[in-house]
Amino acid sequence: MNKQNKEAVKIIPLGGLEQIGMNITAIEYGDSIVVIDCGLAFPEDDMLGIDLVIPDVTYLKENFDRVKGLVITHGHEDHIGAIPYIEKEINMPIYATKLTMGLIENKLKEHNLLGNTRRKVVRYGQNINLGQFRIEFIKTNHSIADSAALAIYSPAGLLVHTGDFKIDYTPVFGEMIDLQRFAELGKKGVLALMADSTNADKEGFTQSEKTVGRTIDNLFNDNQNHRIIIATFASNVDRVQQIINSAYKYGRKVVIEGRSMVNIISTASELGYLNIPDYTLIDISEMKNYPDEKVVLITTGSQGENMAALSRIAASIHNKIAIKPGDVVIFSSHPIPGNEKAVFKVINELEMKGAHVIFEDTHVSGHACREDLKLIYALTKPKYAIPVHGEYRHLKKHAELAVEMGVPKENVKIMTTGDVLEVGENTFDIVGRVPAQGVFVDGLGVGDVGNIVLRDRQLLSQNGLLIIVVTLDKYSNQLIAGPDIVSRGFVYVRESETLMEDCRIVVQGALDRCLRRNVSDWGKIKATIKDELGEFLWKRTKRSPMILPIITEV
Amino acid sequence: MNKQNKEAVKIIPLGGLEQIGMNITAIEYGDSIVVIDCGLAFPEDDMLGIDLVIPDVTYLKENFDRVKGLVITHGHEDHIGAIPYIEKEINMPIYATKLTMGLIENKLKEHNLLGNTRRKVVRYGQNINLGQFRIEFIKTNHSIADSAALAIYSPAGLLVHTGDFKIDYTPVFGEMIDLQRFAELGKKGVLALMADSTNADKEGFTQSEKTVGRTIDNLFNDNQNHRIIIATFASNVDRVQQIINSAYKYGRKVVIEGRSMVNIISTASELGYLNIPDYTLIDISEMKNYPDEKVVLITTGSQGENMAALSRIAASIHNKIAIKPGDVVIFSSHPIPGNEKAVFKVINELEMKGAHVIFEDTHVSGHACREDLKLIYALTKPKYAIPVHGEYRHLKKHAELAVEMGVPKENVKIMTTGDVLEVGENTFDIVGRVPAQGVFVDGLGVGDVGNIVLRDRQLLSQNGLLIIVVTLDKYSNQLIAGPDIVSRGFVYVRESETLMEDCRIVVQGALDRCLRRNVSDWGKIKATIKDELGEFLWKRTKRSPMILPIITEV
Repeated sequence: MNKQNKEAVKIIPLGGLEQIGMNITAIEYGDSIVVIDCGLAFPEDDMLGIDLVIPDVTYLKENFDRVKGLVITHGHEDHIGAIPYIEKEINMPIYATKLTMGLIENKLKEHNLLGNTRRKVVRYGQNINLGQFRIEFIKTNHSIADSAALAIYSPAGLLVHTGDFKIDYTPVFGEMIDLQRFAELGKKGVLALMADSTNADKEGFTQSEKTVGRTIDNLFNDNQNHRIIIATFASNVDRVQQIINSAYKYGRKVVIEGRSMVNIISTASELGYLNIPDYTLIDISEMKNYPDEKVVLITTGSQGENMAALSRIAASIHNKIAIKPGDVVIFSSHPIPGNEKAVFKVINELEMKGAHVIFEDTHVSGHACREDLKLIYALTKPKYAIPVHGEYRHLKKHAELAVEMGVPKENVKIMTTGDVLEVGENTFDIVGRVPAQGVFVDGLGVGDVGNIVLRDRQLLSQNGLLIIVVTLDKYSNQLIAGPDIVSRGFVYVRESETLMEDCRIVVQGALDRCLRRNVSDWGKIKATIKDELGEFLWKRTKRSPMILPIITEV
Repeated sequence: MNKQNKEAVKIIPLGGLEQIGMNITAIEYGDSIVVIDCGLAFPEDDMLGIDLVIPDVTYLKENFDRVKGLVITHGHEDHIGAIPYIEKEINMPIYATKLTMGLIENKLKEHNLLGNTRRKVVRYGQNINLGQFRIEFIKTNHSIADSAALAIYSPAGLLVHTGDFKIDYTPVFGEMIDLQRFAELGKKGVLALMADSTNADKEGFTQSEKTVGRTIDNLFNDNQNHRIIIATFASNVDRVQQIINSAYKYGRKVVIEGRSMVNIISTASELGYLNIPDYTLIDISEMKNYPDEKVVLITTGSQGENMAALSRIAASIHNKIAIKPGDVVIFSSHPIPGNEKAVFKVINELEMKGAHVIFEDTHVSGHACREDLKLIYALTKPKYAIPVHGEYRHLKKHAELAVEMGVPKENVKIMTTGDVLEVGENTFDIVGRVPAQGVFVDGLGVGDVGNIVLRDRQLLSQNGLLIIVVTLDKYSNQLIAGPDIVSRGFVYVRESETLMEDCRIVVQGALDRCLRRNVSDWGKIKATIKDELGEFLWKRTKRSPMILPIITEV
């Protein structure tokens, strides 16, 4: 891996390509490695009991002396969520814009890492030198304020990484994306463009965040006699700003509910990214002092997340808010694929309690659609295109778009997490692989749950287990007690007493045969019990519970 | 429940309202009960290890002498899938149209019930007398041929049940929906309308199935040099017909793959619902004898189902077909909510192997949209409206539509599964409840897995388990062997030897304290072990595995 190609820079995605989330990419030239983003992923359905997935940074640990810093594009969980975990292993200085850094600092505080972590807040247009690299932060738009694209200057050429972005000509907060700078860089010559693929399968242009503001304002106007509850993404500060604007205009007090919403809003507000008129925000405990039509509740739970505030309200297990007939609930969001059923469940529950749920046309995406992407290609005119951020189907659509925009087919590469790509004027090749599987976080354990444990959880979840306890005499190897059978998650025992008794007979038979043949190897005895009982149960019930024989000797 | 109101008929949904699938409704008057449909539901995500859910028919069993028959609207699983299970408990005669009956007979054969079950094939326009009821089958359109609406004549008035339906002016097979008959019934006077709510949240009209045929034909035209693979619903015989038409036109042989596809297509073909030109169908084993551009494979798996043919092809575990670069894969379907992620996974896998996947605009719904529903209301002009078939959010939209169409608000009722609704000229009230929870089928077991078992599976799936085995002396109650600890699905043991050792010390301590205090009650000893070890593990790992102390005495 250390073989030096002076004409090329290496791009190594350590996460984020096959699986949504967990964005992290190493950029390497000579003695310098720069890391871009450090996100987490939420577990897939088959990762039972797992809380989070974080990147495997073995490669960075092995090359720790060359790692110059961590550069962050924006403050979403899939770009900053793994920072505390990774900083514990590799203490890198962090570079980010102001709001992004504020959100990172919240995380570092929670993990008691704030004192040990070097941090530098960067402005748009500012350059930072990291070993052989110089990195410039460029203003973009996204569904969180203060997002940045990166111009990465290396001795082998200029890379542009868009981060997650959209083109919003009329942003709610701050400036529009710095298209002029993209054009300037294009004029100078961009070696490779790494751009956001999330909406590469969507035709047309992405709507401005301001359009949602108008919709929300209309909904406030239409529902002046009702309490309004709005669920949205906690990190969409501009969305919250627009809701607050409408609330103020229509004389409503605002209550913020849900832990992540409260955290992000208070950070954004402290740092000046949110403008809340005096006396507008009230505490949830004060809500009862105002008539329904004079309050709006902004809450988490727009994805139907089990423990989020809105889901608890819908299920009538929220300790402060209950739905009343006439309440208007607005989902200012779109379900992320996989969350549809959970969202519909919450909607059903809300409507059963008499709420009127508004679900459609109250959200715009934070990612560039095809025509926006084309514009970025038109401005930067990269020699090479490396689609990032998306599932394979998005990366492929993006690759097709790059070709449409004039990048030669052989200059477009869809990478796989762990690939090492060498990029230079005359090089564009995968030259190796590094370890890059996700690491599971379960409770306080990081990496102590692997595939064997997950396979066991999977098996237990489908058919439960039977435990067979047998006590043998240490000297004679004769049965002293048992076999006792304990089952969990298999069948409701009261309905299956005869089944359990039959199991005992099968085990007894297997055991007798072993002992008669003087089999004293516990492994063999256990295997015999497992086989015979397993076969019996399959015939009788067409199920395969985990069978766990336990032998004790006294 | 037997209290007689001579002026009213009772409507009792035994399934199908809150949960998608499992459609079954009892209609009752005096000494007569008629059952409409008898479907199954597929398990929700939290029903771990469950294969199917079937309706609870306790009420029908208790009133078996009054049950006159089972009337089926169409042959989808959520309307016929539970028939073999329920017929084992209540032997009812079955009434259905020809194709529907063919599909039911396949099921009865599988369960060895064909000989014992009375069956009558009914034609559109035909009336059957079932006790106090007369039932007329009315032609409708849907995503399966031979679907019917029902006119249910009772002494208390006429009920109309649409079944699942759409209005298709240009159906692929057979006639369009018999709108004239709906109008005639309306003129006579419809007491109550029970209509399909699935698309009650969709504006406009549902497109004709023929429009998909045109799209498919264009895709055949565009891809004449590629092998074509099309996934669709096995039961959509008209869709398959249209694919076969295009295949024939473009000189391709057709291969049918996937068990349910093969079954339904052969039944439909035998019964004359599918017109396959000679020499068009070939066996999958013959595929290799034809060039790629001369075959089309029609397959199951359009919902990303794990073990369906297309999923196995995508994952390279199908034993006869492998994706080649250049293959064109068409999803002629739309993901049912909850299946999106699975479908996208299959698409990603197919594209990684070089296939071109076509996913959009290749499907139309089989359910009526709002304007179609309005037409049915305009023709039937019911006194009462009872939305059926949908989640609560759909039923509610349908209820709003009924009011828009002139049904007084108090004459529209959203029912809950198990409700008993009395309907008559002067009555429209919920008068009782009957048992109506789903019954879980797991392997061969029907109803032997309940909430306790599911809760255990849930717990085991999240954190695994620790088994603590202790052997005590029968007389002295002293520890003879153990504590031994066995864990599964908790942590990877090799990484946690010290943790297991610490657990042993905690258990030993708990045990010592019990025995020193002469606690001999095993329940108390087990509870102490559970509490102390549970607390220790939560502090140390922030996880709560199931803890199972097992005491043996010798």
